[in-house]
Amino acid sequence: MTVRTISVLGATGSIGASTLDLIRRDRAAWRVVALTANGNALALAQLAIEFAAEVAVVAEETALPALREALAGTGIAAAAGEAALIEAAARGADLTVAAIVGCAGLAPTMAAIEQGKTVALANKEALVSAGEVMTAAVLRSGATLLPVDSEHNAIFQCLAGNDMADVRWITLTASGGPFRDWPLERLAHATPAEAVKHPNWSMGAKISVDSATMMNKGLEYIEAFHLFPVGIERLRIIVHPQSVVHSMVEYRDGSTLAQLGPSDMRVPIASALAWPRRMDTPCAPLDLAAIGELTFRAPDEVRFPATRLAREAAHAGGAIPAVLNAANEVAVAAFLAGKLAFTSIAAQVEASLGRYAPPAPASLADVIAVDAEARARTLELLEPA
Amino acid sequence: MTVRTISVLGATGSIGASTLDLIRRDRAAWRVVALTANGNALALAQLAIEFAAEVAVVAEETALPALREALAGTGIAAAAGEAALIEAAARGADLTVAAIVGCAGLAPTMAAIEQGKTVALANKEALVSAGEVMTAAVLRSGATLLPVDSEHNAIFQCLAGNDMADVRWITLTASGGPFRDWPLERLAHATPAEAVKHPNWSMGAKISVDSATMMNKGLEYIEAFHLFPVGIERLRIIVHPQSVVHSMVEYRDGSTLAQLGPSDMRVPIASALAWPRRMDTPCAPLDLAAIGELTFRAPDEVRFPATRLAREAAHAGGAIPAVLNAANEVAVAAFLAGKLAFTSIAAQVEASLGRYAPPAPASLADVIAVDAEARARTLELLEPA
Repeated sequence: MTVRTISVLGATGSIGASTLDLIRRDRAAWRVVALTANGNALALAQLAIEFAAEVAVVAEETALPALREALAGTGIAAAAGEAALIEAAARGADLTVAAIVGCAGLAPTMAAIEQGKTVALANKEALVSAGEVMTAAVLRSGATLLPVDSEHNAIFQCLAGNDMADVRWITLTASGGPFRDWPLERLAHATPAEAVKHPNWSMGAKISVDSATMMNKGLEYIEAFHLFPVGIERLRIIVHPQSVVHSMVEYRDGSTLAQLGPSDMRVPIASALAWPRRMDTPCAPLDLAAIGELTFRAPDEVRFPATRLAREAAHAGGAIPAVLNAANEVAVAAFLAGKLAFTSIAAQVEASLGRYAPPAPASLADVIAVDAEARARTLELLEPA
Repeated sequence: MTVRTISVLGATGSIGASTLDLIRRDRAAWRVVALTANGNALALAQLAIEFAAEVAVVAEETALPALREALAGTGIAAAAGEAALIEAAARGADLTVAAIVGCAGLAPTMAAIEQGKTVALANKEALVSAGEVMTAAVLRSGATLLPVDSEHNAIFQCLAGNDMADVRWITLTASGGPFRDWPLERLAHATPAEAVKHPNWSMGAKISVDSATMMNKGLEYIEAFHLFPVGIERLRIIVHPQSVVHSMVEYRDGSTLAQLGPSDMRVPIASALAWPRRMDTPCAPLDLAAIGELTFRAPDEVRFPATRLAREAAHAGGAIPAVLNAANEVAVAAFLAGKLAFTSIAAQVEASLGRYAPPAPASLADVIAVDAEARARTLELLEPA
């Protein structure tokens, strides 16, 4: 058996924990290079010791003393700060799981891509905000990008053994979120508590609101646009409340391939870890007879304009998707703080897009500047001085 | 563009006609070597002329004069009889579509396989009755077998880019036939007219009855057993009345890949013609939002014992699946002639299996002898002298 090296950027988050859970079950197959976390030094140190990592890195410099203390005498190197994160990502493990949340993940993800190895991508901003910069780096370095998002991983699986030129449609499935059956009038009064009750997946508040507005699907649409260059007119969304079919690819002969599975992120993560083979997971097998029925319906962009905004942003390209993403984060935070109506989230994003259209970013620094500026401008629109 | 050579064995049947319909749409990509038919000399001659075939062969020797006359002056060779069919199949086209119905297709299919090229297989008996003999020939010759049955083609597509060793389940979908909701008491009185009304596919009387008894799925189970050697305990059947999902493969990580499409045989045929690429077909794209729902339920082997009989026959191996198939053909004919109750079809097959268990066939001749003997014995059981 070949032992592969792996680094997990964002080891203490949900994707990181699921990744390490799978590694734990097949310990001898892996050698852990770097583990990183934002600020939870103790949790990170514990993982670094368990997996005998070479290096453990915290993003927050204030967490370094605690990390050093927890790793004292273990022989595991401790470091902190963005440069250290980038250095960890650049160690060139056979597989790097890029699971740092938000713009903080951009530079480390880029550093991993630049090694030309395999990157399992779970950082949404990499392709939403920095899509063109990131895919150019993939082409330059020859890295293999394995999407970890359940939808994109499903599409990746449905493309195996096939040629992208033969694709007629890529169809992202959307649960439709908790408000999929709400009339437009009622949507205006939806509360944060109602919005975070996602029917199929257990998720954080921000992503739950994105699911309720369907902006989550819009952001995935932009990611799919970069991951699978079949042309924007071949990408579409279908509402599938049960979230059993994770996405589909239709070919020009009329064959559609779909990937189905439980709502358990360990399935797509395992697919990325073992690709092009498969590994065992403890996930429940799919019991379609017990599920009974799978339903599908067309998305309603009148009630849920976010997917339209995302499609338009993907089409516009350049900095526009970064503006969309930043404006959305600010608007969602305002909604969660009770300062914005639910239906105003998309309206606010659209307003921000109408007022700020910077030139295409040429580098990650440009992307981060656009992101910051878009946040500031959206905040200003929301809370004029 | 590379021009590929193709032969169609059974060119005037349903699969043959669909194949030529697709070839017609991309005429320049193909050179037709041999076309064969059972006895319809005029229809065959017309196709041979249209596609500028090298040779046209009828199985029935009495049809040869008509074929010769119709092809006079065209430069297309005409021939008749089994030896001529075998010679046509052995011409070693890049792709041979083996679509002769019944045991008559065995020897020509075998001849095609022995050339070590690609064979698109639509002859059910090749794998049901002669499974072990046929798969041994495939291994010996290095031929590539592309299944054309919609279920097996779906499984083949779901296995692309994957390793058979990683398969947890192969799940054949079954419409359940026109009687899927009938109580057992009522099934005993089902008439031939009721049995041939298939809800999703337009098919001949024999195969419609097989669908009603679910023996059709049983025979496909045996085919899948030979095509996809994952072990009998990894093969199962699920009832899916809409016939949109044509079959599925679940991998050990919990991912299930499914192939979906319209009920149009041109989709799997196109998949075999263009493999490993894809070709355009005129088939309607899949509109899941319009379909709305897909349902699934466990099969009921009390009401429909045929799938159990088939599974047991596949497990027993050797000559037993050939006996099952022959006994079923005789029993279905008796049912269609009004001489046997619907529920007695499977009972009759089980009785035949209990009384005739010949040794494993070593050759096609042995298979054909088993088939004939099983038919004679089943007939004798049904109509004692």
